[in-house]
Amino acid sequence: MTGQNPVFIPGPTNIPDRLRYAMSIQTMDHRAPDFIELLSPLLDDLKKVFKTKTGRVITFPASGTGGWEAAITNTLSPGDKVLVARFGMFSHRWIDLCQRHNLDVEIIECAWGDGAPADLYGARLAADTNHEIKAVLVTHNETATGVRSDIAAVRRAMDAAGHPAMLYVDCVSSLASMDFRMDDWGVDLAVSGSQKGFMLATGMAIVGVSEKAMEAAKSAKCPRTFFDFNDMAGANDKGGFPYTPPLQIMYGLRASLDMIFEEGLDNVFARHARIAEGVREAVRAWGLKLCAHRPELYSDTVSAIYVPDGFNSDELTNHIFDHYGVSFGVGLGEMAGKAFRIGHLGSLTDVMALSGIATVEMAMADLGYPVELGSGTRAAQEYYRQTTKTALKTAA
Amino acid sequence: MTGQNPVFIPGPTNIPDRLRYAMSIQTMDHRAPDFIELLSPLLDDLKKVFKTKTGRVITFPASGTGGWEAAITNTLSPGDKVLVARFGMFSHRWIDLCQRHNLDVEIIECAWGDGAPADLYGARLAADTNHEIKAVLVTHNETATGVRSDIAAVRRAMDAAGHPAMLYVDCVSSLASMDFRMDDWGVDLAVSGSQKGFMLATGMAIVGVSEKAMEAAKSAKCPRTFFDFNDMAGANDKGGFPYTPPLQIMYGLRASLDMIFEEGLDNVFARHARIAEGVREAVRAWGLKLCAHRPELYSDTVSAIYVPDGFNSDELTNHIFDHYGVSFGVGLGEMAGKAFRIGHLGSLTDVMALSGIATVEMAMADLGYPVELGSGTRAAQEYYRQTTKTALKTAA
Amino acid sequence: MTGQNPVFIPGPTNIPDRLRYAMSIQTMDHRAPDFIELLSPLLDDLKKVFKTKTGRVITFPASGTGGWEAAITNTLSPGDKVLVARFGMFSHRWIDLCQRHNLDVEIIECAWGDGAPADLYGARLAADTNHEIKAVLVTHNETATGVRSDIAAVRRAMDAAGHPAMLYVDCVSSLASMDFRMDDWGVDLAVSGSQKGFMLATGMAIVGVSEKAMEAAKSAKCPRTFFDFNDMAGANDKGGFPYTPPLQIMYGLRASLDMIFEEGLDNVFARHARIAEGVREAVRAWGLKLCAHRPELYSDTVSAIYVPDGFNSDELTNHIFDHYGVSFGVGLGEMAGKAFRIGHLGSLTDVMALSGIATVEMAMADLGYPVELGSGTRAAQEYYRQTTKTALKTAA
Amino acid sequence: MTGQNPVFIPGPTNIPDRLRYAMSIQTMDHRAPDFIELLSPLLDDLKKVFKTKTGRVITFPASGTGGWEAAITNTLSPGDKVLVARFGMFSHRWIDLCQRHNLDVEIIECAWGDGAPADLYGARLAADTNHEIKAVLVTHNETATGVRSDIAAVRRAMDAAGHPAMLYVDCVSSLASMDFRMDDWGVDLAVSGSQKGFMLATGMAIVGVSEKAMEAAKSAKCPRTFFDFNDMAGANDKGGFPYTPPLQIMYGLRASLDMIFEEGLDNVFARHARIAEGVREAVRAWGLKLCAHRPELYSDTVSAIYVPDGFNSDELTNHIFDHYGVSFGVGLGEMAGKAFRIGHLGSLTDVMALSGIATVEMAMADLGYPVELGSGTRAAQEYYRQTTKTALKTAA
Repeated sequence: MTGQNPVFIPGPTNIPDRLRYAMSIQTMDHRAPDFIELLSPLLDDLKKVFKTKTGRVITFPASGTGGWEAAITNTLSPGDKVLVARFGMFSHRWIDLCQRHNLDVEIIECAWGDGAPADLYGARLAADTNHEIKAVLVTHNETATGVRSDIAAVRRAMDAAGHPAMLYVDCVSSLASMDFRMDDWGVDLAVSGSQKGFMLATGMAIVGVSEKAMEAAKSAKCPRTFFDFNDMAGANDKGGFPYTPPLQIMYGLRASLDMIFEEGLDNVFARHARIAEGVREAVRAWGLKLCAHRPELYSDTVSAIYVPDGFNSDELTNHIFDHYGVSFGVGLGEMAGKAFRIGHLGSLTDVMALSGIATVEMAMADLGYPVELGSGTRAAQEYYRQTTKTALKTAA
Repeated sequence: MTGQNPVFIPGPTNIPDRLRYAMSIQTMDHRAPDFIELLSPLLDDLKKVFKTKTGRVITFPASGTGGWEAAITNTLSPGDKVLVARFGMFSHRWIDLCQRHNLDVEIIECAWGDGAPADLYGARLAADTNHEIKAVLVTHNETATGVRSDIAAVRRAMDAAGHPAMLYVDCVSSLASMDFRMDDWGVDLAVSGSQKGFMLATGMAIVGVSEKAMEAAKSAKCPRTFFDFNDMAGANDKGGFPYTPPLQIMYGLRASLDMIFEEGLDNVFARHARIAEGVREAVRAWGLKLCAHRPELYSDTVSAIYVPDGFNSDELTNHIFDHYGVSFGVGLGEMAGKAFRIGHLGSLTDVMALSGIATVEMAMADLGYPVELGSGTRAAQEYYRQTTKTALKTAA
Repeated sequence: MTGQNPVFIPGPTNIPDRLRYAMSIQTMDHRAPDFIELLSPLLDDLKKVFKTKTGRVITFPASGTGGWEAAITNTLSPGDKVLVARFGMFSHRWIDLCQRHNLDVEIIECAWGDGAPADLYGARLAADTNHEIKAVLVTHNETATGVRSDIAAVRRAMDAAGHPAMLYVDCVSSLASMDFRMDDWGVDLAVSGSQKGFMLATGMAIVGVSEKAMEAAKSAKCPRTFFDFNDMAGANDKGGFPYTPPLQIMYGLRASLDMIFEEGLDNVFARHARIAEGVREAVRAWGLKLCAHRPELYSDTVSAIYVPDGFNSDELTNHIFDHYGVSFGVGLGEMAGKAFRIGHLGSLTDVMALSGIATVEMAMADLGYPVELGSGTRAAQEYYRQTTKTALKTAA
Repeated sequence: MTGQNPVFIPGPTNIPDRLRYAMSIQTMDHRAPDFIELLSPLLDDLKKVFKTKTGRVITFPASGTGGWEAAITNTLSPGDKVLVARFGMFSHRWIDLCQRHNLDVEIIECAWGDGAPADLYGARLAADTNHEIKAVLVTHNETATGVRSDIAAVRRAMDAAGHPAMLYVDCVSSLASMDFRMDDWGVDLAVSGSQKGFMLATGMAIVGVSEKAMEAAKSAKCPRTFFDFNDMAGANDKGGFPYTPPLQIMYGLRASLDMIFEEGLDNVFARHARIAEGVREAVRAWGLKLCAHRPELYSDTVSAIYVPDGFNSDELTNHIFDHYGVSFGVGLGEMAGKAFRIGHLGSLTDVMALSGIATVEMAMADLGYPVELGSGTRAAQEYYRQTTKTALKTAA
């Protein structure tokens, strides 16, 4: 019925045709030379996106959750202590995963809407004089609350504490959309996936692995096979895969990297920042509040927005879907019913973003929200038109 | 960069994925039984869209201009007199085509923005007591000015004059989007194409032909081969084509007809009317003027809109393309520089229409138009939200 | 049923995925700068395929028959005399087209299976001392009989007779598959299409036009509009089209030319020659006869093969389609029932050709043909394997 | 260069266009009603393919190896004893996986080329009077050797021993191609994937789970999160996924199931058996030996074929790829260098199979094999033509 409306969920994203065609490749033999020629530059180019020169990239046919599991099980042993802050649904789920793998999880509870508390991380690490903590886990972009955390600050806290733990970062919904610096920030495990900044179908977990983490994989005792780093890295080094590779997504990823490099990583980030700021202008005009507590926490890939008291955000997203055929993100966990989310990542344009904003307004008017119809759209229009020249120059 | 923005040209339209896949069919043998099974129901189903039971439908691998030429050359002979009103670029071009084929063209000059003058047609026909006029030509939907003419009124005028001329109608940009009644209106030749209401690629002229017109094709002396009705109808009747058929578009047309019938023709018309009225609400809010002189002339597939004095519409459309990556229709002929056009036909949704309207506003603000940013969008939002329930019910 | 079997009709060809994706492009504005950037290099690159530097290329959204009509109507006037040899279905149809446009057609009747008789052309032209003959028409590759004619010889005969007539060549099923030299051979009008050597969907007539022919178009009196050279060339020169262009096929053509140039035109020709010779080896092993009278007439894009006396070729092709789901060309015109055709043009490989040959054999065995099962396949295998190194080198 | 040649690897298979288009779906919201409407019937229809009424089907975005891991980790605890026969690369790898998850693996070593030894399984189980063996693992179709095992016989042996262990079957390369009867054979865990009989891209592990296995999942202690049955089944029951689902493959699976049911499961099996038998006829004609020891072990999805002494199978497959652009399966593990494999599963036709057979012959001739060129092709042709009527009837 409404198949050509964009989606505004925070991933999977709207897929550009170029990538859909790339992923439609007919079956080829994954043991043939063509595949070898594909694989090695693909993994190398992924390193550029992670901004790592010393690490390597390992991929699995799985979703981002599989990437988390790979990072944990390859580098830790049952009983190992990990330190992690919980401030949203995805940090919550990662904690649960660690617990199921019998790790000793020390949790820093934060308010949802807050970011990773570098100071608290630092305090705990400083107190851990025996260095029992083996891993520090941080969610770079908490998709449930639209919060981007300061990974560099966490690294500085770790260094200040002189603590040797490894740093694990969930960058599923930030990589290739917002700046990420694996080497500069001293990240040991960086977990991402195909369906966010890379604008592809779901189906590939993409993990940046530092040398230190690869070394840890030699002795880590958490059981794993499908997600084994050594199997995968060893096979990759010979041009292969330890099992059937997800060929279509790999060719899609080749095209995605081409698109990203053609535009330029910095231009990709600037484009995301501009689209996001337009959405935030709309939220301000509506008089609504973002879940993210402070401007420096605002995510450029997703905005989580509180509905006014007395309204239910699920009713809003359902109404939009039923009446206008457009999908927005629902509130997750603590935010269920209280907030909805606008995903603004991937190949979205300002023009597409305006249609999403205008649609939210219609639905809010339908449901009697105290929001002026057109107000957010106008605010976003104003912002987009004032910034359009820059946008075009960087995209050229 | 902007590949996922919709187009707002008045055709070719945004193509639904379902139709793109249907048109991507691998080569099949057009002399094999599969083709025969495709062809006959396809032509029958097209008759339902033309609303003809007594006529037949003939297609050619060509654009709509080829359909005009087919209609003219198959049914008329050099020197034959035809009567036609000129009130836009497409009626103008059809006149030119007739003249090149050595017809004697009697032109009723009208203001651009006006519709087909049934009364003037009637007067000329009444005066033609010798019945020298063989054909009456009318443009149902003048794409240059966004004007829909009253074909039934022209037919009534012909009947009132008791004139035996055949009625030729250009319904390229109306068929399958706005109501068209070949039998009820006594249309002998109805010319359309694949790239408008059928939402397909350009490449097929689709012509409704009455029994009387088929009879005329037996003796008409205008030379033609590629566009010959008898060759095509004869081959079609045997399940074939007189030359290589455009297989991909034919399979696309099969899927297009399926989509149209699934939604229901009347629902398709209602959807177009609703989208169009939202656009017109925006134009009113901007304080701008439509080219179409009167509400009853408003087209539901394209709106041509005058820019204010002192502004150039080409600058506007160029600015939009350069800064926002969206295509709108330029002013054609007399309208060049004076008007731009918003195409709102095919698979467009209200949500997509809003993005177009919002984009026009940004550009008008950029260029200093005396138009309030957001005003048109808000007016369209208001209209769309008040009519959304109906829309959904009909689309279900 | 068996959608992944290749077709062996002599066009439209099996379409490579790369071209199917290129033709699946979403609608873009044909009046926008992108289109202008596409059009001009596209027309220039087509000139390389025609091997013309002085001529130009004009395309129409139509099939090859439309190209014939364009060539004739743009350059000749009713009553003009044209000289043409008839030796197959397609030369026959071109003659019919000329007659319908009121030309005075002088026909050289030849046996089907023979090629264009340069000597007879020369004799008639020499006898035409008043130079009443305005055009000499030749079918380069007669698709009905699998005969390639010697265009250079016809040109030599024309020159020897000192005759100023223009030379029109139907190269629909040869261009981009077999060598064609528009300038060297002094061809004035060269007519081709998208669905043969270019491996695209049917839908574009592609015509090479010499300067002399463009000059003739200024005064030619055959009526035409859709196929008018001046309209099209004039619009093309400004970056546009006189009506809606077939965007999808144009983007497909861009990709097709890229593929052809990447492989190299000469390599494309060599590949076709090799595949064709393998098919002919099979025919020899079967003890069957090609329609083409002499080896120098053998076409590299299609082989027409006589079935033994007492057998009906239509039964054979029907049987193959019904039992094995593969399409071969039927016998046309004089060849109906007597011969079937194997199309071996476009993106066919030796491996695919073998499946076609093996399938024909199965069907011949089913129907009691005096042909040894496997004999043709083995002969083709032998040929292909002995020539494989060359083939690979040229394709690299 | 040779993109349109089929592949003859034993999966991933050649993908029908219908499935490629289905997998090209634009992003939709996996939390929207459309997804819920997709999911439930999809899982139900998968049960028909597994032939289970009492079990359920659980899918993961992963390859088949992930399915193995899911089956093992959800139903067993570290230290549990499992009984498994090793007779090929894939049984070998599954054993390795069990060992990595700290299971106590009792291995029945068999010759590669043999099938699952029901008698030996029975003997071990009878000896296990304490019922320490918790799981019996069997590879239904060993892809490395082209061997299909008799699962019903293993079940009979288990029942004869009165042993309560659960039965785990790897049916990755058999499901939807050869008969599989989960309920009849008392299979508790049946592991398959998207890229074999379902003809889709790699990316989905598909696991049939009996009620008993679901019960075991409540207490099994092997750690897992991504592959957790309870998470997935719980979410599925509410119409969702515990993480981002692989939407494109799920829509592809919907279309795949439609295709399979349209043809009829039994017809699908018969088609595979016919194609396979033609390949085996070729092998016999070549005078070569299948790896499978006895006819009742012959797989209908893949044939592993020994090359003659003194030849290296890797040279053969490399030569074919380099000279003819076709991919065949290499010899794996013990078969490396000694055998090559012809995959004949999925949407392959007899016509396509012949091209593969003919290609192998060319390469064997090139390399000096003592095999008569054309002999295998002729044998396969003979078989296919004698069985074609049946094939067509079942495919109708």
